[in-house]
Amino acid sequence: MSSSEFDRMWDELHPVGRVASGGYRRFAWTAEDHTLREWFAGECTRRGLQLTQDRMGNQWAWWGDPDADGPGVVIGSHLDSVPDGGAYDGPLGVVSALATVDALRANGFAPKRPIAVVNFGDEEGARFGVACAGSRVITGAMTRERALGLADADGITMAEALTQAGRTPEHIGRDDETLRRIGCFVELHVEQGRALADLDPATAAVAIGTDIWPHGRWRIDLPGVANHAGTTRLVDRHDAMLSAAQVVLTARAVAAENGCVATTGKIEVEPGGVNAIPSHVRLWLDARGSDEAAVQATVAAIGRETSRFGGTLTEESWTATTPFDSDLAGRLRGVLGESTPMLGTGAGHDAGILATAGVSTAMLFVRNPTGVSHSPEEFAERDDCHRGVEALTAVTQDLAS
Amino acid sequence: MSSSEFDRMWDELHPVGRVASGGYRRFAWTAEDHTLREWFAGECTRRGLQLTQDRMGNQWAWWGDPDADGPGVVIGSHLDSVPDGGAYDGPLGVVSALATVDALRANGFAPKRPIAVVNFGDEEGARFGVACAGSRVITGAMTRERALGLADADGITMAEALTQAGRTPEHIGRDDETLRRIGCFVELHVEQGRALADLDPATAAVAIGTDIWPHGRWRIDLPGVANHAGTTRLVDRHDAMLSAAQVVLTARAVAAENGCVATTGKIEVEPGGVNAIPSHVRLWLDARGSDEAAVQATVAAIGRETSRFGGTLTEESWTATTPFDSDLAGRLRGVLGESTPMLGTGAGHDAGILATAGVSTAMLFVRNPTGVSHSPEEFAERDDCHRGVEALTAVTQDLAS
Repeated sequence: MSSSEFDRMWDELHPVGRVASGGYRRFAWTAEDHTLREWFAGECTRRGLQLTQDRMGNQWAWWGDPDADGPGVVIGSHLDSVPDGGAYDGPLGVVSALATVDALRANGFAPKRPIAVVNFGDEEGARFGVACAGSRVITGAMTRERALGLADADGITMAEALTQAGRTPEHIGRDDETLRRIGCFVELHVEQGRALADLDPATAAVAIGTDIWPHGRWRIDLPGVANHAGTTRLVDRHDAMLSAAQVVLTARAVAAENGCVATTGKIEVEPGGVNAIPSHVRLWLDARGSDEAAVQATVAAIGRETSRFGGTLTEESWTATTPFDSDLAGRLRGVLGESTPMLGTGAGHDAGILATAGVSTAMLFVRNPTGVSHSPEEFAERDDCHRGVEALTAVTQDLAS
Repeated sequence: MSSSEFDRMWDELHPVGRVASGGYRRFAWTAEDHTLREWFAGECTRRGLQLTQDRMGNQWAWWGDPDADGPGVVIGSHLDSVPDGGAYDGPLGVVSALATVDALRANGFAPKRPIAVVNFGDEEGARFGVACAGSRVITGAMTRERALGLADADGITMAEALTQAGRTPEHIGRDDETLRRIGCFVELHVEQGRALADLDPATAAVAIGTDIWPHGRWRIDLPGVANHAGTTRLVDRHDAMLSAAQVVLTARAVAAENGCVATTGKIEVEPGGVNAIPSHVRLWLDARGSDEAAVQATVAAIGRETSRFGGTLTEESWTATTPFDSDLAGRLRGVLGESTPMLGTGAGHDAGILATAGVSTAMLFVRNPTGVSHSPEEFAERDDCHRGVEALTAVTQDLAS
C-alpha cells in the first residue's frame, strides 16, 4: 500500500474545522462540511472514480459500474464530527477507503465487482440532533417529514439547510436505486474504547465488529420544593439536587454490577438559581451493554432508585442489539486470520443502520491506545492506521474478486 | 387598625405579574414593575403622603417634612420578585407600612418625627443579578459604574433599562441627601424559614430580627475527561458528574454537621450531551449559618472534598454577619413584649445594606407556616399579617413620638 498517500490525505484534513480546543466542529451542511465534501470529490476525481450523490447528499465514488455489474462492495464512513470531536471518528474510514483503492491498484487488482467509497452525510447528528441522518433517510429508517422538520440550535430546519446547500429537500426519502447498488458494506472505524489496547499488541491492531450493543436513552425527572437557600432549615427541605446526586451514583454502581455502561451527561435544574433550592431536576441516562437483559436490569434498578425519591424514569429511545452479517464477519476473519479479535461496539454507526435495513454489513476497528473518542484526545497510532488500510485492502480485494 | 384596607391593597396586588405557576415575575424596570410603582404612587396620593424618588428610583412617601423636622422613621420594603416568587416577600412589608399609616391616623396619632413608607427598587436582583441594587447604589455599596454595566439575560444593561424608564443613569450613585433623611429603618418581612412556626403559636406571630447571617457563594470546578458514553468502559472513565454528585452529597452532610445550610442550586455540565461523559462540571455553592466559624468550617470541608476529585473551590462572594442595631431591637422588644422571639435570618435584605451603611435598622418577621419562600407556595396567614401591621404600628408610633 501507499502509506504516503494516506499521510498526505490525513494532513490535508487536519486543519478543516479545527477549533481552539484542538478538536473539530464539522457539522452537516456548514462551510466546513462543504469543504470536506469538495475535498472528497477532488480525491475521487484524482482517482478517476465516478462520483454520484444520492438524493440525501451522501457521496458515492464508484470504481466500475454498479448498475451494469453490481451490486458492489462499498467501503467508507463519514467526515462530519461531534462538537469538539476528534480527528479519527469518521475520517479514518473515508481516508482508509481511498487509500485502499490506491493499494488495490498498486497490487494490479482487477475487481470482478464494482467498488465504491462512500462519504455518509450527517453521521454524528451534531447539528440536527439525530445521528446517522444520511443513512437513516435513504433506508427509510427516518421519514422525510421527520428529517426535514429537524431544527438546529439557531432554529434552521434541515429542509432550509438542504435548500441553502443547493439541494432539493422534497426529493429526499427512501432511496431504492442507491440501496440496490450496495452488495455489501464494510465500515472501518477507530475503536472508541480500550478493548483492543488491552489485548496482545502484536495481533490486536485491527478487530472485526460483531454487533452494535443494545442501547437507549431515558429521561429521569426528580421533584423537589423550591425554597430559599438561606432561610430554609435542612430538615425542612425537599431538594431535587440531592435526589439527582444519589441517582447519578446509583446509575454508576448498578451499571458496574451488571457489566454495562451508564452515563448521566446532561442535567437541567429548576429554578437554577444559586440561592434557590432545586424544585425539579431532569437528568438524562444513556445505558448500553453487550447483553440486552443486563442493560434492562440496570435501567430497572435506576428506575427503582428514582421512584424512591418520588421521581419518574421515561424511555426516550431503545434500540435492541444490531447484529452485523455473521457470514460476512466470518469471511473477513478468514482473510485477516483467526487471531483477529471480534468486538461488539457501544456506539451507533451508519453500518448499523444499513445492517438493520438488510444490507450485508461488517465493521473493522482500528486500535485506540487510550480509548478516548468524541474528544480532541481521540487517537490512533499511524502504524495502526496503516495496518487498518492493509486489512481493508485485503478484505475488499477478497469481496470484489 | 383597618384590616379592610390591608385586604383591599393585598387584593389589588394579587394579579400584577402573576404567571401560570401561581407565582410572580415582577422584575426591575419592566412593565410589571412600572405598574407596581404607579400603584404605590396612587396609594401615597390617596393618603396625602409626599412622594419623592431618589436618583436611583427608590420611592419614598413622607408624612411630615424630613428636611425640616427629620431625620424620620422609615418603614417599608420592596415590590419586585424573584422568578416565580411568592406574593409576600417584599409586598407584605410595603402593604403593612401603608396600613400602618392608616392605623396611626385612625389612632389619632400626631407624629413628632416625620414618617416615610419606602419602596426599594430591584431588591431581588432577578433581572441584573445583584440583589438590593436600589439600596446598594444609594449607600455607595455598589458603584455607579458597576451598576450601570450590569446586563440582563437579553443583554440590556441597567443603564439602558434606566434610560428606557425615563431616568438619568449618569446621576445615580451614593445619595447623601436621601440617607440624611433616614433616622431609622424598620423593615417588616415574611419569615422565610420555619423558626416561628415551631414556637408557641400564641406568641410567635411576629419576631424581631437580630442580624443577617454570614453568607457566601462559591464556584466549584470539577474536571473530567470527555469520552463516548457507549464505548468507554467504566474503569477507563474520569466522569466529572460523578465527582459533582459526591460533592453535592458532602455539602449537605457537612452543613448538617456544622449546623449551617448549604445549597447547590446551579450546575453546568460540559460538553452536556446525553451520550458524552462530562469533561467539566461547574457547581455553585451557597452556604450560610448563624455562626461565621461554622460556615467557614463547612466550606473548608467541601473544599477538601472537591480537592479529592482534583477540583477547585473559588469564593465568589462573602459577607460577614450583619448585625442590626441592638439598641433599636431592644426598644422594639420593649414595645412588643419580652416574649417576642428574636431571630437571625439567612436572607439578605435592604435592611442589611442600610445597617452596613451605618443606618439604625431593625426588622420584623411575620410567621410563615410552611417556611416556603421564593416560590408560589410562600404564605402567611391573614391574621398573622394583620398582627404584623399591629406590631409595626406600635413600633412606628413609639419611634415617631
